[in-house]
Amino acid sequence: MTYCCALRLKDGMVFISDTRTNAGVDHISVFRKLYTFGIEGERMIVIQTSGNLATTQAVIGHLQNQLETKQEPNLYSLNTMFEIAELVGHTLRKVIADVTSDTVEQSNYYCSLLVGGQIKGAVMQLYNVYPQGNFISATSDTPFFQIGESKYGKPILDRALHYDMPMDEALRCALISFDSTLRSNVSVGLPLDALVYHKDSLHVPIGKRIYEEDPYFSNISKQWSALLKRGLQELPVPTIDYFE
Amino acid sequence: MTYCCALRLKDGMVFISDTRTNAGVDHISVFRKLYTFGIEGERMIVIQTSGNLATTQAVIGHLQNQLETKQEPNLYSLNTMFEIAELVGHTLRKVIADVTSDTVEQSNYYCSLLVGGQIKGAVMQLYNVYPQGNFISATSDTPFFQIGESKYGKPILDRALHYDMPMDEALRCALISFDSTLRSNVSVGLPLDALVYHKDSLHVPIGKRIYEEDPYFSNISKQWSALLKRGLQELPVPTIDYFE
Repeated sequence: MTYCCALRLKDGMVFISDTRTNAGVDHISVFRKLYTFGIEGERMIVIQTSGNLATTQAVIGHLQNQLETKQEPNLYSLNTMFEIAELVGHTLRKVIADVTSDTVEQSNYYCSLLVGGQIKGAVMQLYNVYPQGNFISATSDTPFFQIGESKYGKPILDRALHYDMPMDEALRCALISFDSTLRSNVSVGLPLDALVYHKDSLHVPIGKRIYEEDPYFSNISKQWSALLKRGLQELPVPTIDYFE
Repeated sequence: MTYCCALRLKDGMVFISDTRTNAGVDHISVFRKLYTFGIEGERMIVIQTSGNLATTQAVIGHLQNQLETKQEPNLYSLNTMFEIAELVGHTLRKVIADVTSDTVEQSNYYCSLLVGGQIKGAVMQLYNVYPQGNFISATSDTPFFQIGESKYGKPILDRALHYDMPMDEALRCALISFDSTLRSNVSVGLPLDALVYHKDSLHVPIGKRIYEEDPYFSNISKQWSALLKRGLQELPVPTIDYFE
């Protein structure tokens, strides 16, 4: 499986993906699921992928190939993030249709993508592209999307994340969401690819690969576990007559 | 959907189930999914159910009917919790086979059950009975089982729960696991049925139904959210060179 999470907040965006892929439990590999595109000072685009690896790699491959061979439209020729999400959706639809035209069988080749970024002169956008190629966009009410193994890491986002949250706090919130998932599900695994984008910077960040021994990540992971354990102890005890 | 969780710890057992059933989102009802059986001072048995409601009610119905009509074997005639888990598994298999003998179609009628309790002179046991009627038992390494919508509530159990945990703390841990699930998934809903059993008491507890307005539950829910928010703020900020 996979876990990818992206936040679109007042001051910027955070993107984190794990790197574990598995065909059964005895064929586990490390594959990147977070891809960065962009032109410094003009546009910054991140695509995160979850699902059939051949499909996701083909989608990214086509998008890169369009750029290399200067086919239009491409990620750098389109004028808005909306058109970029459409291009990603069309590419995905085409990749799957190339494998099989049987709509039932197509579900074996499904993948989901998160597409986020900013183009000069426009606001940041974040889209969740479904396997069918259509998509929804994040709003201030729902400032985050998750794809893949999303349930373990959802409670902390639901409880704590909000649109106006400072970027450094939102980053910690997303990292804790990943830490919870990593601990509860072996199909999601380190290293993580993480990327922070500050609004209107139009800077294409290299991002950070977070390995097992990353001192910051293991430190907040340990502190968070200690906090939860202490927190449970500090919660009030039910009165004696609460239970029969 | 459903969320049921059961803990088998050094000093006792905790059982919590939600009560929401749904056929789609426009047909939501309240149905009990936690059933208590027992003979005061001799045996205490709890069964929790998840899955097809007709199947789970039929399983419980058969077990109750066996007792009422004094058919043997029944929950009160068997000598061990292991035999009781076998009886539940056989009953489940029979209920599903009565609907259809087509093994593929049978999966439409699947349910899972947790069976826990204690019989005088023996240790407490907790079993996770699969739709096929076979089962596994909880150990000190893995002291809890979940059925239904289990992923949202798993991180807190994975991080904090351990076999030697005091009962009141374990109860809070399980309640927080439910609170996280309730907040993140609308298919799991209040009221909850909760039950605490103290080792060797052989007392058959009435348990507690926890409604929306329950002051204790809403209090710890609020305190927990505040703790997480404060905790995120207190986690160290990554150094300036952590991200490019």
